[in-house]
This record gives sequence, structure tokens and C-alpha cells, in this order.
Amino acid sequence: MQITAVQAAEILKAEDNITILTHFHPDGDTIGSGFALARALRKMGKKANVINNDEMHPKYAYIWKGIKKQRFKEQFVVAVDIATEHLLGDRIYEKYAGRIDLSIDHHPTNSFFAKNTCLEGNSAAAAEIIYYVIKALGVEIDEDMASCIYTGVSTDTGCFKYRNTTARSFYIAGVMKDLGADTETINEVMFETKTRGELELERIILENMEYFYDNKLAIAVITQKMYSDTGTTEDECEYIAGIPRQVAGVYVGVTIKERKNGTFKASVRTKPPIDAGKICAKFGGGGHANAAGCYFDGTLEEFKEKIKAVAGEELK
Amino acid sequence: MQITAVQAAEILKAEDNITILTHFHPDGDTIGSGFALARALRKMGKKANVINNDEMHPKYAYIWKGIKKQRFKEQFVVAVDIATEHLLGDRIYEKYAGRIDLSIDHHPTNSFFAKNTCLEGNSAAAAEIIYYVIKALGVEIDEDMASCIYTGVSTDTGCFKYRNTTARSFYIAGVMKDLGADTETINEVMFETKTRGELELERIILENMEYFYDNKLAIAVITQKMYSDTGTTEDECEYIAGIPRQVAGVYVGVTIKERKNGTFKASVRTKPPIDAGKICAKFGGGGHANAAGCYFDGTLEEFKEKIKAVAGEELK
Repeated sequence: MQITAVQAAEILKAEDNITILTHFHPDGDTIGSGFALARALRKMGKKANVINNDEMHPKYAYIWKGIKKQRFKEQFVVAVDIATEHLLGDRIYEKYAGRIDLSIDHHPTNSFFAKNTCLEGNSAAAAEIIYYVIKALGVEIDEDMASCIYTGVSTDTGCFKYRNTTARSFYIAGVMKDLGADTETINEVMFETKTRGELELERIILENMEYFYDNKLAIAVITQKMYSDTGTTEDECEYIAGIPRQVAGVYVGVTIKERKNGTFKASVRTKPPIDAGKICAKFGGGGHANAAGCYFDGTLEEFKEKIKAVAGEELK
Repeated sequence: MQITAVQAAEILKAEDNITILTHFHPDGDTIGSGFALARALRKMGKKANVINNDEMHPKYAYIWKGIKKQRFKEQFVVAVDIATEHLLGDRIYEKYAGRIDLSIDHHPTNSFFAKNTCLEGNSAAAAEIIYYVIKALGVEIDEDMASCIYTGVSTDTGCFKYRNTTARSFYIAGVMKDLGADTETINEVMFETKTRGELELERIILENMEYFYDNKLAIAVITQKMYSDTGTTEDECEYIAGIPRQVAGVYVGVTIKERKNGTFKASVRTKPPIDAGKICAKFGGGGHANAAGCYFDGTLEEFKEKIKAVAGEELK
């Protein structure tokens, strides 16, 4: 059933011994949402744990600062920022699929896998909804919760730059700042810190970036060797897909990444009016109007040529 | 005299034929503030022009879209985002020094050069104060004004990342978004667009960046030849000074820039607890705790060695 944030809070008020699940490869929104909620429930005297399929990156350590796992017989299960049960990750899926009581989510593609679903598809982040749930729980938001919620909102909006950012994202960020969120340190860690390996990978990519069609198309390539040479991983370097489109005059920015099995994945970023989803659909992929992805089984050169041709059609 | 935003609005209500001055090398905040105010005054039926000492970068063109210079006999002069009269730039200084009626500013260092000064030193941007002045003028903020004000707030806070960002900065950004500011395009143009020359300069800098003291100090060098080879200018590439500090583990990031006269300037960026101002003070320079600058007359190698020694002391 689709329920509101206030209804979700009413349900949570009646429950105890609560497990909160995050999505696999946990990011700032799912972790920030999960621990903000766990902190609020604990402040109410309830028992609550956050459980992740995969290890959380240590840069988020302030989010679970002071939180120790509690022992209890689980009575209620919440999923935060999770569109479908498969996104729980294999280990968690195996244990929890089919028995999730409450889903709090912002993905319009949510499959309504839970008993009750609090879905706000216009929210830039699940943490925005968590803010309203905690308010409805009647819990005073402390500095730690504020930092958790701010992390969700700022990371899911790319520091308020992505097109999902709404006036409400700004308002909630302002409220969290007023309530003591350490936005300065969070922004520095999330948006202003790169490893030497990431910078070295950037350098290599910049060195090899190719331009076509009067510089309207830019193609960057990342091979497995580049990852190993620089000690980076594809996960860490997700942001690099944004670099080709950054160039003034470029309308289609493509980053082709070699996968571990030798096939290729392309991340396509466009500026209006060019539709990234339409380009990727030609390869069986998909996504949004300005950001999409697709896979390819042939050689790098074949993939490049085909993408060039498809992008060229769109750029006409 | 120090006055409030409401008092500034009262004064402006009684005036007409108003000239608004921006600071030299005009940035997003001074231009955004100036044109937001001019648009509001014109909406009230008054005549108002914005005058700049230097050409405005075309990326800001949406700010003055539809605004044509008006002919009138100037009766009142306003300076926005200007701490001292010398920041007007030579040409404007010559004409207007000593005869500015109203200064609307957020620099704590404002020298109170105007007849009346509306100074809010805690504002991240002059545009935040302009928002309150326009509200007090009773003018309904339209999409164009909202885009002007959003530009001032977002550029002066580095898209809400700099330490001057307050809860109010977020709130005002949210209000501007609600009122129709095109935050998506503005963010893309201001924060997600680089020229090929800038990217090439970044690549060269990454290639030559040096690390010392267990990677706690990073030094980048930009020579005049690098600017000319990449077709960039020092002004455009100001943001590059932030790159060395971005590296995980670096506490002191130094960018040494060769000046046209062959001397050198260093931009020093630090992470707490290292004080950038203290490092630069050793060279007769100064600035803030995390961002400061200084000059040096000797050779590049001498400068590097001395900065290394001074930074080494602080890193102990």
C-alpha cells in the first residue's frame, strides 16, 4: 500500500526491534537515511540496527559514529532508498526478500515489494522523506541526524547541481545546517577530495580524450589496465563519466569503460536538446534524457565507431 | 552611516535615475546583485542602469537579458558587493569616488566609503542582502531576478561548498528556485563547464604536481608558458588553485603561479588545523585560515624551497 510519511511514522511508533536495510554498494543517501532513522528510533527508546550487504566506505564514518549494533529479536524490517528487492544485494536479498514491512523510497520505479511503501518520486533523495518521517515521529533532530540527512540530500543532488534538485532540497539542507549538520566537512569529504590514483586516472583520460563533429562529441576511454595502473576501481571513479560533457561546446560526452570480462560499458551524458537515453537505446541500454548507459560485446574500436555514428545522427 | 536592508529600500523608494556600480573584474555576485536590483527598480517604474569598469563574461548573459541601457540624468549612485572604492576599477573610480550614495555589501572589510552603507558581514553573498532589499521595496521577484540572485549566492558559495555558506544561503536558494530561477542551467554553466584549454592546463598540472612530507604537502606550478600553450588566462583558471588540496591526505595545497613580470604568486589552501594565513604571512601575504596568498621576487626553485620549509614547520 502507498502511504504518507506521517502514516509511516504512525506505523513505526507502534513497532520495536527494527532492522533497517540499505541498498547494495551503499551510497550517502541510503546510509544517511538508514542511520538518521535508526538514531531517531533509538532516541525514542526503541531498538534499531542498520544492516548493509556491502561494506560502507570509511569516508561516511561520521554517519555511524557512536552507533553500536544492538541485540534484539527482529520484529520489523524497513528498506530505505531501495527501488526493488534485488538492489538489497545477494546476501540480504536471500534473507529478507518477501518479508519487508516498510519501504521508504524516492525512486519512481519502486516495485512496491514491501507491505507498506512510502514513496515520494519527486524527492531528490530518500533522506528528504526520512526528514518528514522523523518530524512526524516527534523526535528532535540532533546534529548527528542532521549530518546524516544533509549527506543524503547533498550526495544525491551532486551538491545541488543535478536536475533532481528541488526548492525543498535547498530548504531541507538549510534546516539541517541550522540544526547543526557539519556541512563544511561533509562537502569537503564528498565533493572536494580525490585520491592520487583518481587524479592520475583523470590525467590519463584527459590526455586521451577524443573530439568529433566540431567538438560537439567527446569520447573518453577507461581500460582495466588504467584502473590497475592507478590503483582505482570503477565504483570510485563513477564521477569521471561527467568529465567529457564538462567541456564547453560538447553536447554528447561518452565514457567507454572496459569491464572485467573484456566487454564494454558506455556512460553517455548530454546537454539539451540531445537525448542520452535515445542514444543508449540503440544499444539496448537506457536511462534519462541527460544521463544514460549501455553495454557492448565487440571491440573497443567497433563500439567507438558505432557510438560516433549514432551520436552523429542526433547531433545533426 | 550603517543602515538595514529595510532602510536601504526606503531610501531607494524616494530616489530615481539610479546608477548601480559593480566591482572590477565583475563576478557572479556583483553582476547578479546589480542587475537584480536594476530589474526591481525598473519594475517600480524607476530608471536604473548597471555600469561596470570591465567587460562582463558572456557566460553571465542571461543576467542582463532584455535589459537595455536607459538615458537619464543620474541622481543617485549605488555600489553593490564593493568593499572599498578602489575595487570599482580605475575608470569608474575616477568618475565616482567620493560620490556614492549607498553601498550594499557583505565584506566585513567595507570601508564605509558611501553616504549610507547596508553591510551584512555574515552574508555569504551580496545577493542575499539584495533579496531582502527587493522584498522591502515591495517588488514581486520574477524569474529573471530570481536567476540573478541565485547566481550571486551560488557563485559566492562555490555551489554551497565554501565555509561562508549559511542556512540562509540555502533558504534563499530554495526561495529563488521556487520563484523560477533556472538553477540547473546556471549550475551547469558556472560549475560544470570548462574549456578545452582549462582541461589541458589541468592535465599539465596533474602531470607535474609534487608531493612532500608523506604526501601532506602538494605543490603545483603554473608558468606563463602553460597559459599561452593552452590559451588560458590566470583569471579563468583561478579555480585550479583548489586542486592540490583536493588530494586525500594533503593538508597544505600550494599553487605557484608565474606572473607576467616574471615574479611569482602562491595560492595556499589548507585543511584544519593548518593555517594558510600563517604560512603566507611569512612571505608578507595573508588571507583566511584555509585560503591565503603571497608573492615572491626570487626564482621558482627558491620560492618552492622556502614554502616547503615554512609548510614543513606547520605540518610538524
